[in-house]
Amino acid sequence: VVEAAASRLVLKTDCVIENVHYRSEDPARKIGWKAAARVVSDFAAMGARPKHALVTFALAKSRSGQWASSVYRGIADCARRFGFSLAGGETSSTPVGSWLSISMTGPAPEVPLLRSGGNEGDRLLVTGRLGGSFASKRHLRFLPRREEGCWLAKRKGVTAMMDLSDGLAADLPRLASASGCGFRLRPESLPLHPWCDAVAAMADGEDYELLLAVSASRVNPVRNAWKRRFNLALTPVGELTAPGIAEGLEGAGYDHRADS
Amino acid sequence: VVEAAASRLVLKTDCVIENVHYRSEDPARKIGWKAAARVVSDFAAMGARPKHALVTFALAKSRSGQWASSVYRGIADCARRFGFSLAGGETSSTPVGSWLSISMTGPAPEVPLLRSGGNEGDRLLVTGRLGGSFASKRHLRFLPRREEGCWLAKRKGVTAMMDLSDGLAADLPRLASASGCGFRLRPESLPLHPWCDAVAAMADGEDYELLLAVSASRVNPVRNAWKRRFNLALTPVGELTAPGIAEGLEGAGYDHRADS
Repeated sequence: VVEAAASRLVLKTDCVIENVHYRSEDPARKIGWKAAARVVSDFAAMGARPKHALVTFALAKSRSGQWASSVYRGIADCARRFGFSLAGGETSSTPVGSWLSISMTGPAPEVPLLRSGGNEGDRLLVTGRLGGSFASKRHLRFLPRREEGCWLAKRKGVTAMMDLSDGLAADLPRLASASGCGFRLRPESLPLHPWCDAVAAMADGEDYELLLAVSASRVNPVRNAWKRRFNLALTPVGELTAPGIAEGLEGAGYDHRADS
Repeated sequence: VVEAAASRLVLKTDCVIENVHYRSEDPARKIGWKAAARVVSDFAAMGARPKHALVTFALAKSRSGQWASSVYRGIADCARRFGFSLAGGETSSTPVGSWLSISMTGPAPEVPLLRSGGNEGDRLLVTGRLGGSFASKRHLRFLPRREEGCWLAKRKGVTAMMDLSDGLAADLPRLASASGCGFRLRPESLPLHPWCDAVAAMADGEDYELLLAVSASRVNPVRNAWKRRFNLALTPVGELTAPGIAEGLEGAGYDHRADS
């Protein structure tokens, strides 16, 4: 039983699965961190903060209790860092392949920012840098853009937002489609991590950066205020267009027909 | 984003895993029902009703989209029957072994009934009948005792309650221990399903009946009011005692040392 922090609540759930979202040999504590941070990132994308978490943990028979404790420590690390509490959970035994599912609740922002609010002509921007998250193991220790997301959601002119968990090639068409728009991406403008190329970065996923749409006239004020507030890139990478246009994802595994 | 139905909330989560909570060949729609009904049962045990559910569904690569849709239909059956809504969810692909994790929120009762409220001398009662749930496939279509739980939680003299998901041999020691008590169970008084014996019924689990503690002086008033309200057995099966006593679970796999 927890106090409801507000009259309207955000509910989100996500999971990590062995050999899908992490490798068997990855450090247990970082697996726990990632499982929790993914949900925090989901909250961030709508400008919200989680308050309470519920953990369902299925532990493969081959795993030790010590491994499980380390996973929980990683969840607790994330809870401390982002100020939510562990309200409860269930541990179950599973024949093979451990997994964690984490649900969180938190107060809804007055006007939650959704991926569906974008308009034709809005500029597309991304936070931070993209690419190579899985190869560099960054996906196990990423910092969800919670403060950035809450700040952006309150800025005038920010119309739509989502977090990049599956990569631009999958996520950008989702934001555009939810907003009833097409899109034009400029791959050469993508902010990349060192040694990553744009095509791989679009296809990769696991960046947990924010993708947002901003009214053209508000891009400069938002970027200027951002620079005073955050020490992180906020980069224009393209724009929303009339529906039916899908430019800039060539070569990154994006298939037009998948949206039709 | 959902409306918070009250200022205090109950949050619960549970899961079903292939070859743990159901068999691969069990009907998909009933797997979905069970996944949701388990959480409703958890709410019932504290006298609460869920309002919103979040589903995390990991689908083994070998399963068809049709199978997944049937599982979701089973969840929707349970949502309709028990009046909660599906607020969202995530579907993920998993190499082997499908599973579902469901979290629910709902308003907290004014005084939530916990398993820790029992006192020495309280009588122990169970709803319905026990035993043979897995063998008879009842575990796939059980009705959570939601109305019964909400009604019992408001009765004067009911001090502790839980649902019997793991069997009396596992669950009764938990209730007694949480209440700082021991217990004395009378196996011959257990209400059994046909063709079940008491020892198997205590060890079996998956009954999802309610186990409750009632002050000795309130047992008769509660039972009389119950009979007027519900067409279901409510059977005295023993009592809470001073700590250190653990009688009646002999032969059902209960190990005293596990609690010490």
